[in-house]
Amino acid sequence: MDIVCWWYSAGGKMDYFYGPGRNHLFVPGPVNIPEPVIRAMNRNNEDYRSPAIPAMTRTLLEDVKKIFKTTSGVPFLIPTTGTGAWESALTNTLSPGDRTVSFLIGQFSLLWIDQQQRLGFNVDVVESDWGQGADLDILASKLAEDTAHTIKAVCIVHNETATGVTNNLAKVRKILDDYSHPALFLVDGVSSICALDFRMDEWGVDVALTGSQKALSLPTGMGIVCASPKAIEASKTAKSVRVFFDWKDYLKFYNLGTFWPYTPSIQLLYGLRAALDLLFEEGLENVFERHARLGKATRLAVEAWGLKNCTQKEEWFSDTVTAVVVPPYIDSAEIVRRGWKRYNLSLGLGLNKVAGKVFRIGHLGNLNELQLLGCLAGVEMILKDVGYPVKLGSGVAAACAYLQNNTPLIASRV
Amino acid sequence: MDIVCWWYSAGGKMDYFYGPGRNHLFVPGPVNIPEPVIRAMNRNNEDYRSPAIPAMTRTLLEDVKKIFKTTSGVPFLIPTTGTGAWESALTNTLSPGDRTVSFLIGQFSLLWIDQQQRLGFNVDVVESDWGQGADLDILASKLAEDTAHTIKAVCIVHNETATGVTNNLAKVRKILDDYSHPALFLVDGVSSICALDFRMDEWGVDVALTGSQKALSLPTGMGIVCASPKAIEASKTAKSVRVFFDWKDYLKFYNLGTFWPYTPSIQLLYGLRAALDLLFEEGLENVFERHARLGKATRLAVEAWGLKNCTQKEEWFSDTVTAVVVPPYIDSAEIVRRGWKRYNLSLGLGLNKVAGKVFRIGHLGNLNELQLLGCLAGVEMILKDVGYPVKLGSGVAAACAYLQNNTPLIASRV
Amino acid sequence: MDIVCWWYSAGGKMDYFYGPGRNHLFVPGPVNIPEPVIRAMNRNNEDYRSPAIPAMTRTLLEDVKKIFKTTSGVPFLIPTTGTGAWESALTNTLSPGDRTVSFLIGQFSLLWIDQQQRLGFNVDVVESDWGQGADLDILASKLAEDTAHTIKAVCIVHNETATGVTNNLAKVRKILDDYSHPALFLVDGVSSICALDFRMDEWGVDVALTGSQKALSLPTGMGIVCASPKAIEASKTAKSVRVFFDWKDYLKFYNLGTFWPYTPSIQLLYGLRAALDLLFEEGLENVFERHARLGKATRLAVEAWGLKNCTQKEEWFSDTVTAVVVPPYIDSAEIVRRGWKRYNLSLGLGLNKVAGKVFRIGHLGNLNELQLLGCLAGVEMILKDVGYPVKLGSGVAAACAYLQNNTPLIASRV
Amino acid sequence: MDIVCWWYSAGGKMDYFYGPGRNHLFVPGPVNIPEPVIRAMNRNNEDYRSPAIPAMTRTLLEDVKKIFKTTSGVPFLIPTTGTGAWESALTNTLSPGDRTVSFLIGQFSLLWIDQQQRLGFNVDVVESDWGQGADLDILASKLAEDTAHTIKAVCIVHNETATGVTNNLAKVRKILDDYSHPALFLVDGVSSICALDFRMDEWGVDVALTGSQKALSLPTGMGIVCASPKAIEASKTAKSVRVFFDWKDYLKFYNLGTFWPYTPSIQLLYGLRAALDLLFEEGLENVFERHARLGKATRLAVEAWGLKNCTQKEEWFSDTVTAVVVPPYIDSAEIVRRGWKRYNLSLGLGLNKVAGKVFRIGHLGNLNELQLLGCLAGVEMILKDVGYPVKLGSGVAAACAYLQNNTPLIASRV
Repeated sequence: MDIVCWWYSAGGKMDYFYGPGRNHLFVPGPVNIPEPVIRAMNRNNEDYRSPAIPAMTRTLLEDVKKIFKTTSGVPFLIPTTGTGAWESALTNTLSPGDRTVSFLIGQFSLLWIDQQQRLGFNVDVVESDWGQGADLDILASKLAEDTAHTIKAVCIVHNETATGVTNNLAKVRKILDDYSHPALFLVDGVSSICALDFRMDEWGVDVALTGSQKALSLPTGMGIVCASPKAIEASKTAKSVRVFFDWKDYLKFYNLGTFWPYTPSIQLLYGLRAALDLLFEEGLENVFERHARLGKATRLAVEAWGLKNCTQKEEWFSDTVTAVVVPPYIDSAEIVRRGWKRYNLSLGLGLNKVAGKVFRIGHLGNLNELQLLGCLAGVEMILKDVGYPVKLGSGVAAACAYLQNNTPLIASRV
Repeated sequence: MDIVCWWYSAGGKMDYFYGPGRNHLFVPGPVNIPEPVIRAMNRNNEDYRSPAIPAMTRTLLEDVKKIFKTTSGVPFLIPTTGTGAWESALTNTLSPGDRTVSFLIGQFSLLWIDQQQRLGFNVDVVESDWGQGADLDILASKLAEDTAHTIKAVCIVHNETATGVTNNLAKVRKILDDYSHPALFLVDGVSSICALDFRMDEWGVDVALTGSQKALSLPTGMGIVCASPKAIEASKTAKSVRVFFDWKDYLKFYNLGTFWPYTPSIQLLYGLRAALDLLFEEGLENVFERHARLGKATRLAVEAWGLKNCTQKEEWFSDTVTAVVVPPYIDSAEIVRRGWKRYNLSLGLGLNKVAGKVFRIGHLGNLNELQLLGCLAGVEMILKDVGYPVKLGSGVAAACAYLQNNTPLIASRV
Repeated sequence: MDIVCWWYSAGGKMDYFYGPGRNHLFVPGPVNIPEPVIRAMNRNNEDYRSPAIPAMTRTLLEDVKKIFKTTSGVPFLIPTTGTGAWESALTNTLSPGDRTVSFLIGQFSLLWIDQQQRLGFNVDVVESDWGQGADLDILASKLAEDTAHTIKAVCIVHNETATGVTNNLAKVRKILDDYSHPALFLVDGVSSICALDFRMDEWGVDVALTGSQKALSLPTGMGIVCASPKAIEASKTAKSVRVFFDWKDYLKFYNLGTFWPYTPSIQLLYGLRAALDLLFEEGLENVFERHARLGKATRLAVEAWGLKNCTQKEEWFSDTVTAVVVPPYIDSAEIVRRGWKRYNLSLGLGLNKVAGKVFRIGHLGNLNELQLLGCLAGVEMILKDVGYPVKLGSGVAAACAYLQNNTPLIASRV
Repeated sequence: MDIVCWWYSAGGKMDYFYGPGRNHLFVPGPVNIPEPVIRAMNRNNEDYRSPAIPAMTRTLLEDVKKIFKTTSGVPFLIPTTGTGAWESALTNTLSPGDRTVSFLIGQFSLLWIDQQQRLGFNVDVVESDWGQGADLDILASKLAEDTAHTIKAVCIVHNETATGVTNNLAKVRKILDDYSHPALFLVDGVSSICALDFRMDEWGVDVALTGSQKALSLPTGMGIVCASPKAIEASKTAKSVRVFFDWKDYLKFYNLGTFWPYTPSIQLLYGLRAALDLLFEEGLENVFERHARLGKATRLAVEAWGLKNCTQKEEWFSDTVTAVVVPPYIDSAEIVRRGWKRYNLSLGLGLNKVAGKVFRIGHLGNLNELQLLGCLAGVEMILKDVGYPVKLGSGVAAACAYLQNNTPLIASRV
């Protein structure tokens, strides 16, 4: 018998990065998982063909519709990421060569557009400055011109995670309606759904999607896609090649009552059950208000620090992520690095066009006021570390002033 | 403050199926997860762009090659299932209309063929009776005829999970070599890799793949695909439409040293690290021998019960799953149902052509002798339950006689 | 940054004993913890002075009475082991020099007697052969003679874990009543409560106790003591020195509604909550029947092997542990060692007088039929390993024959 | 099959107090458990008589001496709490009627004195105002007078958790030495060991003790007692009645190499292994510095708020807990209540004499700068909530100014 580490053989190769205390996770995803959800997933595998899993799946499919605010939509819980969910939305509803209108306003809308192009669609890109929302006037004019209905889908990211910009989906629907345009309305709700109010039915969204590791506060690995009846109808004739992402296979197993065309993650199913329960327990509207509160507090801190929000107008302010613009003499990546190296704080990098220029504070998912304030205090110290003349305490003071007036008592503890 | 369940609000909708004691999980996947792996995954999310995750990923990519026995292959850890891994293998190496030779010997080879067809390939199906292995003589004759090299890929399931049939991959390679045929050699190793000896380099396999929930003994959610240099080369010109499954994006991020084109499951990465450590600690060859031992013991029990193995010849016997043929007067689904309802035992159903005719005992992954013997004792009682005149104890006795002579001491405890 | 094991620094000193598959835990405690209980305990610490912990404690104290079948008893959940629970029972009710009658029938009754002596009581030991139950005729004669009521307490182990002997508590009560003797009736229910029917009120038990790691199927660390009103009354005048174990401090905090005189284990409280829920879900009477079934099956196997039960008469057979006598030419410790080294099976050693002569199979707590059958198959192979001419399969066959006729369907799955 | 909650039957009685985001745990124990420790404890029970547990125990006993800074001491890991550890220290070294000198400076020293009295010792109480340290001048004069050596032990709480006062143990030793007094030196290190520098050998401490749920950052349930050779010698003649807490039984099993006189908590053993590994990885001296840093930052915040530290002189300032005095018009309990109800913040109540007058911030164990800053921000908002005219951000600013200058990079991430 050798005397070695019980867990790790000698020569273990995993890098060691332990720091004392908790990691402060403020990237805009993956986000903090609530303890009850971690517990729910702490389990062995199970036979997904036993009666237990379909019985639970039935409740999941029913309940997941509530986070989309849809009654007529059909949800799909796909073992994939947001990128796969995008692909599922597109390939099930469109055919190669189909024209889409898509808005380029940041890194994630860029990546989706790239996917649309690589999947063979004819993408009509509407570009804005990074920091601005989708240009809906251009959408209106394109729809106005498109009397032949060559536009098959309008694709929009609800909340651009790279710049902290939230687009107005009600307005998109209104424009589509104004022109009685039949284009499908496809929405990336990855960093919005479960955090920002999302009204699939009211807004006439045809496909909405999110990923488990965002505001649902689960591990990565489940792409959640919800399709309107119109989208389901479209899927019957859409010619894009697909198998793994094909809704048809899901629908077949839904009809059989066994639900899964291939093996789901047992752990994520139980995790989703727990996550939904927590969301409903808190109350979806309360969840939205909490996000609004944390977003507002963050923006007040940024203002107090004398820094600029990457988001150019208040109407686009995001309550799930704030991209903070740093002065030109500072490399925002250094801020992120120091956060991790010195304060066990994980912030989001600036991406692509805004790399080095912004850092991001994710404030979505299972998060409360004091967690955010710890992060803001950390950012202040880092700003000082990197030579920005911040007044220590200023951002926290501004955030506290707002939060002290606006944070409700915890419902279960009153 | 309401007095309600802390975890579940009143009106909780999850079905309740608790039974005392452990579930005996003997479906051929998902399989039992070792406790150290469950522990390793019991964690919050992390920022996958911090230095920690790339550092760990580097070790994973290096070590995962060992389970394929390749040094030149390039592995991809894709957030998907086996079905997605199939799609990744095909779409990255082939173009629409390409001719593949594919063997239909059971439900999973059938599904792969279906995928190949739906992805637009020209599939040359070589069918055998369910219970037989791939007909390699036909392969030889097809290759012989194919002097024009219209066959772009030979696709084969190493271990057909529906019938418990293991194909001889060395022989496939030999035939390809005999005819100096340049076709790609694509292998589904879903229910073999990490349980049966798999020699990617030696057998000249071009793409091999498995899923995390099989012999790796992890939760579902990671498709592990390994590509030979020839396959990587093919991917540069393959015209199949793909984005989520595109190796190109992975390779780009490998070069950047950040590794992930989109968000991975932090939990599965740590789980994979732990799972690989356990496999290497036990020793891969010892892992294979353990599977051989458990497979043999199972077959001896089946024989002692007077039942037939669905696998028609010894050369095809699978050491990861045994499909047991029941007498015509018994519905094998009833055996599976009773196992679950009475003994907390999860067996595999007969699928498609063999539905009702066989039940399956999965004996792969993190499993030992006494676990299997408990299962075999359970099967005996169930057989009696459903009216088969089994001699109770007979199968266990046969298995024990073999195991008592062949089970080594646990290395760490000698 | 060093490349070392993330968890264990170089030079990690923990011994490594990993074996593939699950450990088969058949010592008579600590026993297997159900997965839902492990999950419930998988949590951070909490402030035990917040409203949450007292609120939960209130439910625990109420519900724990059900496992003692008492309505008038007062339970104490003490951060200690069974040994500490013994001490709590004795020091709270007796004064130094007090005469107790105590039965020596095996190692655990011996240890309790040793404790009684060291605590300064005048112990009147009634000894029987190891393998026999308490000699209640002697108790009767002692009580008959004790018209002066010098006997202050009758101390008895309900189930002697070392020999697998269950004493008849109803009969003890009857004898006490026959002589209208006021002695306190103190019972060690460590390896019985939650597994064997225990009727504190009906049997007039004054103090009953158990440990969390036995049939409650929790980790070690909670001694559960239940005191009758008569015992509580006795505690007011008992002169034994005590502080940590003093019921008075608990009662004071019960009155305050904060419940804890010192810090409890948050994890064990949540674990106990989950354990009780599972027991009530299954139904206590069903739990007892399951233990009776598993005990009977074990004894049938022992008989089929041609071995002797250490317990000398059927009336004392224990449904929680079976001590198996091995032939003189075999060292029973070798059986236990081989179980652990070869089959990942944990059996109980013979203790003290029966060391080397018996090995023990614990069949209590969260356990089902197939788990036990796996263990029995393992024991058969070990017996063969060590040279005993067992007919392989014989014990399993005998157990199966019984279990196949007597195992009910799992209630939640019907 | 009923449709009920899988985990909790309808009518579940556990109170529900869930709030979004993490609980901010700032009571001075139980403290936050590091994730790796939670993981290490997430496991089934094991046979503690197998070779694995003694092998691990051996490493624990060796390594635990390091946190006491002793080489000659003998450690005991007792399944109990701090209260039990006190009792172990006293009853193993003293006889009824023995004279002890004990310092009353707050609630926990009071409770220890109460225990000493109830255990039958003749306690010579040296009382100070709550907020002051032990009066060592009086100790000196008592020792000076005690030429007959009637004082058998000097009992002192290293860090009084109720008032945030740290006593000077080196000075106690010096006084004992000055008078060449042979009294035993017994130290409660419950809220100091692993957080404050503790030098058992250098200070000639005879018994030192702590509890697992304090700076070791484990769950409650293990009392860790370390005895000097002189204390071990004393235990051979000490007449206090004891069994559960008797060192003799431990020493007997140490000699046998099986270590445990009764069942330990398997989970806590693995947890302790992980906790020690993390402490050594960080470096004990770094751990002390981190506590010094967090303590200083807290005191700076308190000062900035214009509030008084309960601790009356700087020499007694505690780096593990700060008791903050509130103005007379505020009930400090209301501060604690609002923390829990509104901000998911757990602060410590004022106890006994200082109830209503102080609230306590525990800053010990697995904790880092941003966690503390989140807490401080929360306290500021609560102070405002309850009508104290705090300048929001002031305390955080003061703490940040200090921390930004004094927090080192995380060693593993440089």
